[in-house]
Amino acid sequence: VINTRVLLAKRPAPKMDESCFRLELIPLAAPGPGEVVVRSRYLSCDPYLRLEMASERFALDQPIRARAAGVIETSADPAWPEGTRVWGFFDWADFSVVPTSALHRVSADTTLSQAIGAQGMNGLTAWVGALDFGRPQPADTVVVSSAVGSVGSIAGQLAHLAGARVVGIAGSEAKLRHAVDDLGYDAAVSYRGAHPLGEALTAACPNGIDVYFDNVGGAVLEAVLPLLRPQARLAMCGSISRYDDPSSTAPDLSRLMGSGATAQWFSVHHHLHRLPQVSAAIGRLLVDGALTYVETFVDGIEHAPTAFLQSLHGDHVGKVLVRIGDVN
Amino acid sequence: VINTRVLLAKRPAPKMDESCFRLELIPLAAPGPGEVVVRSRYLSCDPYLRLEMASERFALDQPIRARAAGVIETSADPAWPEGTRVWGFFDWADFSVVPTSALHRVSADTTLSQAIGAQGMNGLTAWVGALDFGRPQPADTVVVSSAVGSVGSIAGQLAHLAGARVVGIAGSEAKLRHAVDDLGYDAAVSYRGAHPLGEALTAACPNGIDVYFDNVGGAVLEAVLPLLRPQARLAMCGSISRYDDPSSTAPDLSRLMGSGATAQWFSVHHHLHRLPQVSAAIGRLLVDGALTYVETFVDGIEHAPTAFLQSLHGDHVGKVLVRIGDVN
Repeated sequence: VINTRVLLAKRPAPKMDESCFRLELIPLAAPGPGEVVVRSRYLSCDPYLRLEMASERFALDQPIRARAAGVIETSADPAWPEGTRVWGFFDWADFSVVPTSALHRVSADTTLSQAIGAQGMNGLTAWVGALDFGRPQPADTVVVSSAVGSVGSIAGQLAHLAGARVVGIAGSEAKLRHAVDDLGYDAAVSYRGAHPLGEALTAACPNGIDVYFDNVGGAVLEAVLPLLRPQARLAMCGSISRYDDPSSTAPDLSRLMGSGATAQWFSVHHHLHRLPQVSAAIGRLLVDGALTYVETFVDGIEHAPTAFLQSLHGDHVGKVLVRIGDVN
Repeated sequence: VINTRVLLAKRPAPKMDESCFRLELIPLAAPGPGEVVVRSRYLSCDPYLRLEMASERFALDQPIRARAAGVIETSADPAWPEGTRVWGFFDWADFSVVPTSALHRVSADTTLSQAIGAQGMNGLTAWVGALDFGRPQPADTVVVSSAVGSVGSIAGQLAHLAGARVVGIAGSEAKLRHAVDDLGYDAAVSYRGAHPLGEALTAACPNGIDVYFDNVGGAVLEAVLPLLRPQARLAMCGSISRYDDPSSTAPDLSRLMGSGATAQWFSVHHHLHRLPQVSAAIGRLLVDGALTYVETFVDGIEHAPTAFLQSLHGDHVGKVLVRIGDVN
């Protein structure tokens, strides 16, 4: 079997484009003791990978390794038989050789794609930031940037379910409509609109902002700061806007001095023990139709770089996944 | 009676010096219904006033109004008889006319100076930041900047009493010695020493930093960031180092992304309901000798500007107070 893999060809410094990646076709290795070969079905495209690709976390000329879900193709571990549906950190490749200690089972009532999306780390990230840390109350105004993205779309809907007034920030008319019409945002404003974001936000948040779930940082965070109410909570999830320009000036958070505001640069990895319960809860909300989650599929491992760039810069809504082979 | 008052003559933009203040001698007004005349004994010199003087919170050519403690001299409110010991926000003046709704009684077991220091807002600020928010554990390393100042000295000692390893940051050999010898810090490092602060901190905090109580911001905060452990807590109390240079670059806190760190720009005003209990608890620690609090007195209302500048830039330890008239 010839395996197709996507390697990191060069670091994204400063810009990330297709030239950062290279395809490689090599014979598939056999699994050693305690290992399996996983046939990947879905690769998760998440903006945070941009930071890892720029750092020493990924080696050059080695496969990108990221969240993915698939099925065990061949096994050298009796506890993990062929056909088991799993997720974990796999190569950007059709097949990955993985130690079974790094595998997670996907329960029968979860699709493979949602196991690495709404019912996986994206959902847990949204839950931890929007609910555990944000603690939205019915009288609160919650603002979410990347409002229709893989994490933001769940964060906004969870805050809405908690009874808060929820305002989304996104970059196109289609996204703003999707936020209000499909995701239940009370209002949505553009950071590329006719009016400066600060004015649009002021109009959409007449009582100020109690909770800000930030996926983008930079100028959007800057526009949010003056509107924060006393004792506001800032769930700091990402700063996509600065990934391509790390030298750009960060907002001066010392302006919050004395405001009682709290910011948390939370990591889902400190909350992994909650994944089974949160995944089940989000699964019920999806089945009930109380939660909407849009998945965008890009077919074929060779298009993984394109799909990833789309997740960083694209005009998609919801989650971008690379889909490999038959749909499961 | 001729009253001596200190007025804000010009805003500190950019520098704060004696020319920002002006003395005024005017006849003392009589109290109206529901008002009293307070004879001030102590004026509290706190760096945060620097920010208020630069903002519209203080009007030009009007008296500075800040925390002070004194005794009711004449009263037009039967509930507040002459001789009552009180604290509140009074003019920088020998006498202030104050509505009794703005007065707080000072209990008999508290000195007037400590009612606006260790057992007042300074103590409550330290308690809220170091204990409520910082939650120091015995295995934790807690770092405090302005380690021997009016707030920092209590914050460090409270964290030490909670069992944490406590490291202070200060700017002179005398302060470092005072921190370790008198206040019980496990170590103290200088931000003006022979070695860069980052190196000194790394040596003093071999396990990293779990809690940082920040009074200064700027370059000191910058040096702390790389040493923070996962899920660190940053109690953001002040940023003295930037008050004279607001255009200086603020540390980029987005570097904490994914670390699980939490920062709170807490305000003591959101926790005022706790003052009676915290004041009593700190009073017991002071009487027991478990807590040390140094007070520096500058005598005479005419020296209030000098005393305030000393609290901002000076080489004192502990609390700076203007003392007026006989000691009480």
